[in-house]
Amino acid sequence: MGQKYKSIGVLTSGGDAPGMNACIRAVVRSASAMNIKVWGVEGGFTGLIRGKYKEMGNRDVGNILQRGGTILQTARCEEFRAPAGRREALREMNNAGMEALVVIGGDGSLNGAQKLAELGVPVVGVPASIDNDIYGTDMAIGVDTALNTIVDAIDKLRDTASSHTRAFLVETMGHASGYLAIQAGIVTGAEMVLVPEVATSVEDVAARVEEAYRRGKAHCIIVVAEGFSPPTNELAEAIDKLDHGFTTRVSILGHIQRGGSPTAFDRMLASRFGMKAVEFLVDGKLNMMTALRGREIVPVPIADVVSNARPVAEEYIEMARVLSL
Amino acid sequence: MGQKYKSIGVLTSGGDAPGMNACIRAVVRSASAMNIKVWGVEGGFTGLIRGKYKEMGNRDVGNILQRGGTILQTARCEEFRAPAGRREALREMNNAGMEALVVIGGDGSLNGAQKLAELGVPVVGVPASIDNDIYGTDMAIGVDTALNTIVDAIDKLRDTASSHTRAFLVETMGHASGYLAIQAGIVTGAEMVLVPEVATSVEDVAARVEEAYRRGKAHCIIVVAEGFSPPTNELAEAIDKLDHGFTTRVSILGHIQRGGSPTAFDRMLASRFGMKAVEFLVDGKLNMMTALRGREIVPVPIADVVSNARPVAEEYIEMARVLSL
Amino acid sequence: MGQKYKSIGVLTSGGDAPGMNACIRAVVRSASAMNIKVWGVEGGFTGLIRGKYKEMGNRDVGNILQRGGTILQTARCEEFRAPAGRREALREMNNAGMEALVVIGGDGSLNGAQKLAELGVPVVGVPASIDNDIYGTDMAIGVDTALNTIVDAIDKLRDTASSHTRAFLVETMGHASGYLAIQAGIVTGAEMVLVPEVATSVEDVAARVEEAYRRGKAHCIIVVAEGFSPPTNELAEAIDKLDHGFTTRVSILGHIQRGGSPTAFDRMLASRFGMKAVEFLVDGKLNMMTALRGREIVPVPIADVVSNARPVAEEYIEMARVLSL
Amino acid sequence: MGQKYKSIGVLTSGGDAPGMNACIRAVVRSASAMNIKVWGVEGGFTGLIRGKYKEMGNRDVGNILQRGGTILQTARCEEFRAPAGRREALREMNNAGMEALVVIGGDGSLNGAQKLAELGVPVVGVPASIDNDIYGTDMAIGVDTALNTIVDAIDKLRDTASSHTRAFLVETMGHASGYLAIQAGIVTGAEMVLVPEVATSVEDVAARVEEAYRRGKAHCIIVVAEGFSPPTNELAEAIDKLDHGFTTRVSILGHIQRGGSPTAFDRMLASRFGMKAVEFLVDGKLNMMTALRGREIVPVPIADVVSNARPVAEEYIEMARVLSL
Repeated sequence: MGQKYKSIGVLTSGGDAPGMNACIRAVVRSASAMNIKVWGVEGGFTGLIRGKYKEMGNRDVGNILQRGGTILQTARCEEFRAPAGRREALREMNNAGMEALVVIGGDGSLNGAQKLAELGVPVVGVPASIDNDIYGTDMAIGVDTALNTIVDAIDKLRDTASSHTRAFLVETMGHASGYLAIQAGIVTGAEMVLVPEVATSVEDVAARVEEAYRRGKAHCIIVVAEGFSPPTNELAEAIDKLDHGFTTRVSILGHIQRGGSPTAFDRMLASRFGMKAVEFLVDGKLNMMTALRGREIVPVPIADVVSNARPVAEEYIEMARVLSL
Repeated sequence: MGQKYKSIGVLTSGGDAPGMNACIRAVVRSASAMNIKVWGVEGGFTGLIRGKYKEMGNRDVGNILQRGGTILQTARCEEFRAPAGRREALREMNNAGMEALVVIGGDGSLNGAQKLAELGVPVVGVPASIDNDIYGTDMAIGVDTALNTIVDAIDKLRDTASSHTRAFLVETMGHASGYLAIQAGIVTGAEMVLVPEVATSVEDVAARVEEAYRRGKAHCIIVVAEGFSPPTNELAEAIDKLDHGFTTRVSILGHIQRGGSPTAFDRMLASRFGMKAVEFLVDGKLNMMTALRGREIVPVPIADVVSNARPVAEEYIEMARVLSL
Repeated sequence: MGQKYKSIGVLTSGGDAPGMNACIRAVVRSASAMNIKVWGVEGGFTGLIRGKYKEMGNRDVGNILQRGGTILQTARCEEFRAPAGRREALREMNNAGMEALVVIGGDGSLNGAQKLAELGVPVVGVPASIDNDIYGTDMAIGVDTALNTIVDAIDKLRDTASSHTRAFLVETMGHASGYLAIQAGIVTGAEMVLVPEVATSVEDVAARVEEAYRRGKAHCIIVVAEGFSPPTNELAEAIDKLDHGFTTRVSILGHIQRGGSPTAFDRMLASRFGMKAVEFLVDGKLNMMTALRGREIVPVPIADVVSNARPVAEEYIEMARVLSL
Repeated sequence: MGQKYKSIGVLTSGGDAPGMNACIRAVVRSASAMNIKVWGVEGGFTGLIRGKYKEMGNRDVGNILQRGGTILQTARCEEFRAPAGRREALREMNNAGMEALVVIGGDGSLNGAQKLAELGVPVVGVPASIDNDIYGTDMAIGVDTALNTIVDAIDKLRDTASSHTRAFLVETMGHASGYLAIQAGIVTGAEMVLVPEVATSVEDVAARVEEAYRRGKAHCIIVVAEGFSPPTNELAEAIDKLDHGFTTRVSILGHIQRGGSPTAFDRMLASRFGMKAVEFLVDGKLNMMTALRGREIVPVPIADVVSNARPVAEEYIEMARVLSL
């Protein structure tokens, strides 16, 4: 039982997430403790194709645990989507003697990992995506940090919101997922949350704002997931046309949510994922993603991850409703 | 020498700014130390007209020093712009025995204070505006906090920016003033700053972005003051149409910049302004604004403040140019 | 099935923890949604004995979600340890028509809840303690915030540590528990962690410091749990007497770890606990503590909680060893 | 007019301060804009003696603006205190063709700069010290950041302080200076500030604590400068022996105050100082320290700086008294 590798590669791919560096560090240090050499591949799958990698030792990952972003850089790679690109990657891995690969990233990156697995490369995936839209794991790397960044921002809005009669639309990231918006809405006590998963008309939004106004609230904070339709700017214009008592203002946090020093939670999750990724490889649990289930880190087949959509957390939608009274 | 007041009022008006509470506290406590009663007027000039005020003692301003926003609320007041509104305010002040008034706010608020002064009310103004667009004082209350909020946001962008080849437009507040944008641009090492005071064509912006790309920069951060034309969203679309190597992303911080616990600097400035405001009243330095000049707090006639525009700091525009190499 | 209450009480007791306010809010709002009146008891069990409580509606818990500390105050109560004190508390509850009680606090507070339960009062406990030393739940309210406060502090030390050849001892809270110290040590990449659960001699500490020096490290950060023996100040003196290349400096964070706005995690956990506490009461799951197990909130008998000690997490001690290479 | 240098050196020395990196960056970039080569000397004067320096270009100082600590490292250097050590430094400078030197640091470092100046080396000093104990400049690099770090910590204490009847002693850095303690005390609304410059007996402290207790305050926060006598731990024991109603707890922030990302103020001050340092050299304003006076950066002879003590700011001591009522 268990595979004996001499050298493995690690790369980060797709949108970056706070904690990726902590994960790289854990991969390097736990591989190093088993005398496995680690190649750090730069710029995601592009770096694999172009042969851009360097050996990483314990010292190379010193003092990166607390840094946002990823020291290995990341990029989206068109080339890799074609079979020719993937064969090229394989050739480069063979040249370097890279026998297995740890892929840290989101859905697209895990898809890439799966394609390599189909070519016979032993891979382990690590879920990293601030959107928490990856199937099979309670949490992905970066979610907790992004959520706290949003919460800090909305707390600031609340200070000023209490001094005026204003309605604030705050747009959060998440692509097609409303996870961040819902969680942020609950923990900041927002008056309303708008997510792609739940259709809401402009009239309903305006009505809710007006109700807040009539009940004498000093302000009305609405968290809008970026995937919600209509887009935030259009929504703001539309509800401002309807009379609701408040003046509407928009904040679009954007990529700020991807940055910042990772929280304690993300550093711990990333460190555990990194250690487990190496353990999975060595134990022959191949083509798996490290997944958080309760307190445990378990292997979930990447094939399952990429072929399933993460269900919406209905309980949180209900929770938002009860608490925002 | 100096006037003996039995009771004075204090109000906050216009856009709120972090540190207003620290200023209210200092007004109350230093007046209290001279046995002057303080009326806290709620909701700015509107509260004055409607007779909404309450006596404030030392204990009422306990534990507010660190809070963003203003416990006295603020509002913009149409009614007060008309002579009838101002006469009403005067009548209410007389009813309450409010002999003088401290007005904490921005340009519009100081204008209001000036109108009251013209009716014979002894007033002292305190400059509070995150935009730092008030003539006659080095700094207004709230600027330092807002600047640090922007800096935190851009630092986060830089983390993620280093992981991708992206151009980021970050919109900062400031109405017609580019102060916050320029300062933020310098202290975050932004590649470019766009302000209303300096016309820049879309082509020039795109050229600068392209140059950053050609020089191999991993990213390009552009700070855009909200008063810049074209508006940030339009600008983003326009430069994305021109080929420059990067993908463009937008962050609009919005009212987040108005909130948050005030920095040490803003608490100190607000506390000093508050104490000086009472001192000016007592010393008969009337219809003055407390102004920071170097290390000193000096009186500047409100009439001068409202009839002059704050000049652009040319030195900082040059500084941004040299350091962003 | 399920009990119908007209009114219940809620109190916070023992050492305060960030998130207690979010929990109070959730208790009030979910009770309110079921038309149950909530009495907020002030100052823990002391307030119960003295009859200090007030009705709390949805508005009374507005804008407290993000506040550290507890608006209900907390106190340690000698009187309540005696049967006479508890009988007095019971009499006051009857006077107020308080039919059940939610107790938010640590081990000692849950013990108090258990004593009330033995007198026939329906109680539900909510674990709140930054030390995470409560049996039966993965996490208690306040732990995540405290951990992030410690992490911020150690990250700052690391900045300056890299500029000097210094050894830093950082003392964290935790009474007899090393939980915070171990977690903080792992997620900040500390060179060593000293906890009450693992005896370590002064000589071993000095040897580890010396080894770090010999390996050319620019610094050496040691996290010391407050329960470790010898106490941090003595330890610092002792290792400074042994020659190890570095100069030793001490930081004692103290009660700073109890404060601050709760993190997203703590707000969510506290909100869920608060809602579940009311649900448990209504469903007749009495004398239970709300406990986090994986993703679920489950009832655990308070009697079990107070009669068991939380075991040390061996896996994290091992993890600290591997990653701090 | 002015000197034409081909190459200059820059070093950081003594205790590090947030903003040193921003200053190094500004020195390099403004020298570079004048085609002057810059040598970055590592480890302060020790690096000068040992010949440890490297050429630094614009790219070498990219992405350091926001970092705490100093990329050039710093050290205290015994060797340099002897004439032989300084001659050695001079020889190394000549070897490298280093024609002038920018020294960034505190009193001790400026003293070193002065000694070099006496050997004929053109030097400019930049004041950097979180203690703000340097004569001749309103502010030194790092003070604003350290102050905000202290303020964050005390704000956290206040949360928990309001939940208990506790007296907190918070020890701040500052060597023989009480500057940080006084400023922090004012802007956090501390009940008392203890500084080396004002003798206060243990009995007086206990009396003040007792008075706070009698007036019904929920807590009592005392900021203690590290230079105060008796030391904080002894003081805590001593006042706990005197009956005053509160339980006393101690926080010792220590070197945490030296770290962290610099505030906007410190980045700006450091950037301006760095640019001016090069300008002073080029303009022949030699053996000067860059000093902030009001809004201006002016040259002050280093000889004056090192032979004068910074006076205590009496006005702030009075201000602390009035506002903490």
